[in-house]
Amino acid sequence: MPKTIKKVGVLTSGGDSPGMNAAIRSVVRTCAYHNIECIGIYRGYQGMIEGDFKEMGPRSVNNIVNKGGTILKSARSVDFRTPEGRKKAHENLVKSGVDALVVIGGDGSFTGALLFNTEFGFPVMGIPGTIDNDIFGTSFTLGYDTALNTVVDCIDKIRDTASSHNRLFFVEVMGRDAGHIALNAGIGAGAEEILIPEEDLGLERLLDSLQKSKASGKSSSIVVIAEGDKIGKNVFELKDYVEANLPEYDVRVSVLGHMQRGGSPSCFDRVLASRLGVKAVESLIEGKSNYMVGLQHDKVTLTPLEQAIKGKSEIDRELLRVSDIMST
Amino acid sequence: MPKTIKKVGVLTSGGDSPGMNAAIRSVVRTCAYHNIECIGIYRGYQGMIEGDFKEMGPRSVNNIVNKGGTILKSARSVDFRTPEGRKKAHENLVKSGVDALVVIGGDGSFTGALLFNTEFGFPVMGIPGTIDNDIFGTSFTLGYDTALNTVVDCIDKIRDTASSHNRLFFVEVMGRDAGHIALNAGIGAGAEEILIPEEDLGLERLLDSLQKSKASGKSSSIVVIAEGDKIGKNVFELKDYVEANLPEYDVRVSVLGHMQRGGSPSCFDRVLASRLGVKAVESLIEGKSNYMVGLQHDKVTLTPLEQAIKGKSEIDRELLRVSDIMST
Amino acid sequence: MPKTIKKVGVLTSGGDSPGMNAAIRSVVRTCAYHNIECIGIYRGYQGMIEGDFKEMGPRSVNNIVNKGGTILKSARSVDFRTPEGRKKAHENLVKSGVDALVVIGGDGSFTGALLFNTEFGFPVMGIPGTIDNDIFGTSFTLGYDTALNTVVDCIDKIRDTASSHNRLFFVEVMGRDAGHIALNAGIGAGAEEILIPEEDLGLERLLDSLQKSKASGKSSSIVVIAEGDKIGKNVFELKDYVEANLPEYDVRVSVLGHMQRGGSPSCFDRVLASRLGVKAVESLIEGKSNYMVGLQHDKVTLTPLEQAIKGKSEIDRELLRVSDIMST
Amino acid sequence: MPKTIKKVGVLTSGGDSPGMNAAIRSVVRTCAYHNIECIGIYRGYQGMIEGDFKEMGPRSVNNIVNKGGTILKSARSVDFRTPEGRKKAHENLVKSGVDALVVIGGDGSFTGALLFNTEFGFPVMGIPGTIDNDIFGTSFTLGYDTALNTVVDCIDKIRDTASSHNRLFFVEVMGRDAGHIALNAGIGAGAEEILIPEEDLGLERLLDSLQKSKASGKSSSIVVIAEGDKIGKNVFELKDYVEANLPEYDVRVSVLGHMQRGGSPSCFDRVLASRLGVKAVESLIEGKSNYMVGLQHDKVTLTPLEQAIKGKSEIDRELLRVSDIMST
Repeated sequence: MPKTIKKVGVLTSGGDSPGMNAAIRSVVRTCAYHNIECIGIYRGYQGMIEGDFKEMGPRSVNNIVNKGGTILKSARSVDFRTPEGRKKAHENLVKSGVDALVVIGGDGSFTGALLFNTEFGFPVMGIPGTIDNDIFGTSFTLGYDTALNTVVDCIDKIRDTASSHNRLFFVEVMGRDAGHIALNAGIGAGAEEILIPEEDLGLERLLDSLQKSKASGKSSSIVVIAEGDKIGKNVFELKDYVEANLPEYDVRVSVLGHMQRGGSPSCFDRVLASRLGVKAVESLIEGKSNYMVGLQHDKVTLTPLEQAIKGKSEIDRELLRVSDIMST
Repeated sequence: MPKTIKKVGVLTSGGDSPGMNAAIRSVVRTCAYHNIECIGIYRGYQGMIEGDFKEMGPRSVNNIVNKGGTILKSARSVDFRTPEGRKKAHENLVKSGVDALVVIGGDGSFTGALLFNTEFGFPVMGIPGTIDNDIFGTSFTLGYDTALNTVVDCIDKIRDTASSHNRLFFVEVMGRDAGHIALNAGIGAGAEEILIPEEDLGLERLLDSLQKSKASGKSSSIVVIAEGDKIGKNVFELKDYVEANLPEYDVRVSVLGHMQRGGSPSCFDRVLASRLGVKAVESLIEGKSNYMVGLQHDKVTLTPLEQAIKGKSEIDRELLRVSDIMST
Repeated sequence: MPKTIKKVGVLTSGGDSPGMNAAIRSVVRTCAYHNIECIGIYRGYQGMIEGDFKEMGPRSVNNIVNKGGTILKSARSVDFRTPEGRKKAHENLVKSGVDALVVIGGDGSFTGALLFNTEFGFPVMGIPGTIDNDIFGTSFTLGYDTALNTVVDCIDKIRDTASSHNRLFFVEVMGRDAGHIALNAGIGAGAEEILIPEEDLGLERLLDSLQKSKASGKSSSIVVIAEGDKIGKNVFELKDYVEANLPEYDVRVSVLGHMQRGGSPSCFDRVLASRLGVKAVESLIEGKSNYMVGLQHDKVTLTPLEQAIKGKSEIDRELLRVSDIMST
Repeated sequence: MPKTIKKVGVLTSGGDSPGMNAAIRSVVRTCAYHNIECIGIYRGYQGMIEGDFKEMGPRSVNNIVNKGGTILKSARSVDFRTPEGRKKAHENLVKSGVDALVVIGGDGSFTGALLFNTEFGFPVMGIPGTIDNDIFGTSFTLGYDTALNTVVDCIDKIRDTASSHNRLFFVEVMGRDAGHIALNAGIGAGAEEILIPEEDLGLERLLDSLQKSKASGKSSSIVVIAEGDKIGKNVFELKDYVEANLPEYDVRVSVLGHMQRGGSPSCFDRVLASRLGVKAVESLIEGKSNYMVGLQHDKVTLTPLEQAIKGKSEIDRELLRVSDIMST
């Protein structure tokens, strides 16, 4: 029989993403609903080590469902990588009566959670929060849908002016290792070409594609480029390359940067956050540990943290074909 | 062996929804990609009867992926309900060399398409376009995700002022027969109570819930009400009822209306539209007919039109529980 | 020589509006800049009576410049209308060392401030915060510009669907006594007709205008109606009237309601709030009292509170003509 | 007595800006209102030379009031700088019966218009359309207000994530020669420091200011940098410089680029466009020429084109002080 959970700690860790606050709110209110106490841990694992805790009741999370960022703040913790750091963190939790932990973050955060469980047998559950959608075991990570909307909104504005002039626009989006954002936002925004880390398009094909695009009667083109694209040039080097090879083109660059991590979460991300938070807390109550909650086939599911960490969230290659067809 | 498709007609029918233009664009460009001709049929079935057609090439659909509404316009057609009307429509298609049809719309539009196929053996494919998400055979209809974002944006603004005063806000959203919008947008917006057609909450429980909400320390509350809620009172009658029974409350009403059907589609709706358009055209090319394309378990699928029409898209009852927990 | 100001109190009163938080932030930081203390008074005059005060330093107002609503909350106070209430309020201020007051609100709030000054010789400055733009002595009140954008965004969405069907849309906007919102948002959104409190268009002319609009080839029309329009019918009665007299029309209604008071302030409102806050505090420091700060001819100005209260902010009648021309 | 105007030509020229379509619509409908014909000239002066004209009636401009970009497209014309080019353009206008011209654009476009008038005595009026707000004779150019909102929306999103981490964000905005956007959007977004072309802050002061900001308890800072800032380093060089000198900082860069030129115009820009279009056409009807219409002191005014071109639109230096106070 599992030990009864009396107090849950919740933290956000790693790069923040829209929907993290909605997830915190869900964890806090699910605890209240089941008459369990809840404390917020500030600044991720670092705050756990420093004992930066705050009791949270249902009214502590009023009016945050729609806020970007994370009220618990996030930080990367060097100390938590040391046995001493984790020991201190554990002592703080025990001292505060916390007997289970919900970690909202990405791969790195889950690795920390799993290690913490291994060392201290402490119950942990993960909620996938990152805009990159690069986590195995869930079709959608918190913040991904919002980030897509942010990117297409920006490109829509660029398109207004693109269609007034004859120009080529390069838009760099986030995604060092995963092209989910570039691929989906590129299709959504009607980009003529999309460069992603998973696929080496090759510079030749890019030039080809741009020339074909012009030949087909398009007066201007938008290229979406993931930070981590395979071509191995940054967006400004790419601009120079294209202008050198296709002198008729005038290339303009936008680097969206961290705005993609912020903003009010979409309805999808808020509902997802609410559902995942409920499942995380109720799974802890049921005595489960070491899982990540996620959404698969429209259902909330549990994936062992170990698999979530090791597995890779592949892009849907059929979307590459859809993108090709769409830029006909 | 299926007859080779040479020219596809595409129309939008019934209430319009964001993403219809993205779907039209996808159909047109998929045709071009496969060297098939495409014509746009204006004003739905009525335009089919009147021969209101226009040849469409890939450049005809430039810069519409992000536009709300439908460039083909939509209309309800009384004439198409008569055998004479449908005969005339069929003659027009044959005369124009159209040999397959993509219908973007809801249940009613699909019923017309199926009848048309039965009578003339004409190949038809349906794409679910409606904000209500009330179609069997797809987890998401085109426009639904956008409508949810529209509703939560409006309620977020109301919440700003709600949290400044002590007030009760009633927000009426679309959904005559289906509570998908009310339920999901209600959770997303952090509504205290949600009234939907599928569930008779009862007036007593509403009063109870509002009083509990106040007792728990909430300074103001938002109630989301679907047009077709079971309580059988319109939103202004409900206001009078609550003010009569809970005189401490000052109720303010918003009726969102048709803004929910418009607006630039979300990235999700645009990608969905692109994928469904590709599948619809390629299924026709493969000789298939009488199916609706949809998204199920993150994959594009085919559902027989007959099932799509007869089946019912149920709300996820687990969300009612999530909503309850969230309003703790 | 004026008494040196050492501690300023700031409150928001009446209906809230976007930009109030930016104004609070400006007051607080201007105080800090000049080494003056500042306290926030919660819930307007009611909080003044109840001593609901909080010390505010520059970090107390981090990250609120972009938030709708008011962190100090607002309330209407019956007690402040009594001499006893005001006496209590004054005692609280004196006890806390507050020696000057900035009131962010509308006419009613300024009347209270002026009375308070008259009775106790207490220095007061007003900042015009209301979405209605109905205050004499400033071309723009805080929140008005934001509310206009909220309204046109909503009507843009309605227009998407309007242009797909043949329909008539009635949109009720705020403005019980002043047509500024209806008139400007109506022009901005391209409404075919605008009904405002200042002008009795007459029902006949409305019908005429709608028929002319149809005759000119418009497939659908949008009518913007201020709550307080002169015609003396509410928007649903108006719908019935028009449908009875022009049976070819199908009228759909949106009642925007309190969403117009919320939302993240526009850049214009934020800059305006910043400028007005600086001027309010620096005027108090210079020994001035009983003025409202405002923006006139692109400059920050002072208007005696008495004039601000008595004067009327007229609509620009030239805009009525512009509206007529635009709906050609 | 002025020659009666019978047909007005309208064009957009130079970099496009939100509100240009609303201005085109206003010109077209004001012509119709006064029973004057109107033609649209595509691609600015280049289209004038090539005779790329289209008759425009009131229905030609349906549903464009809210669209970014310009339906007439814009282009820079080398040919128009030659006497031959201008002669050809004039012949085309005469041949088409056009007897007056409305030019929507910036300084360069006005210079062309003035030259055209000088050479051929052709009546011309200018409407200031550029996001940079750098035109003498108007407090606001078309598109400026919208661009400010675009920039603050982006920075708000960055702020969400900024407040979660301890970071420094550099945001590059448009403004090669004018700091209006950087200064106003910087204040609106609550930037800690603003670098503009008009003011050489000096690198030392920037480092100082960032250190003070940290010392005052701010966990992260946002710096808004105009493209043409005086410091003479591009934003990436600036990042390297700051990171070298303040190693505790992790600098992240966003380059907003052309999204600032697009997007649906704000209500303010739409109303302004409507008013300016009416005034431009009615001034031509009254026999006036060689003026720019503008908004000064809340009124629509005329400024001789020559002055508009030669004069400089200064930034409001009081805003520099407001910015300083706000970053206390």
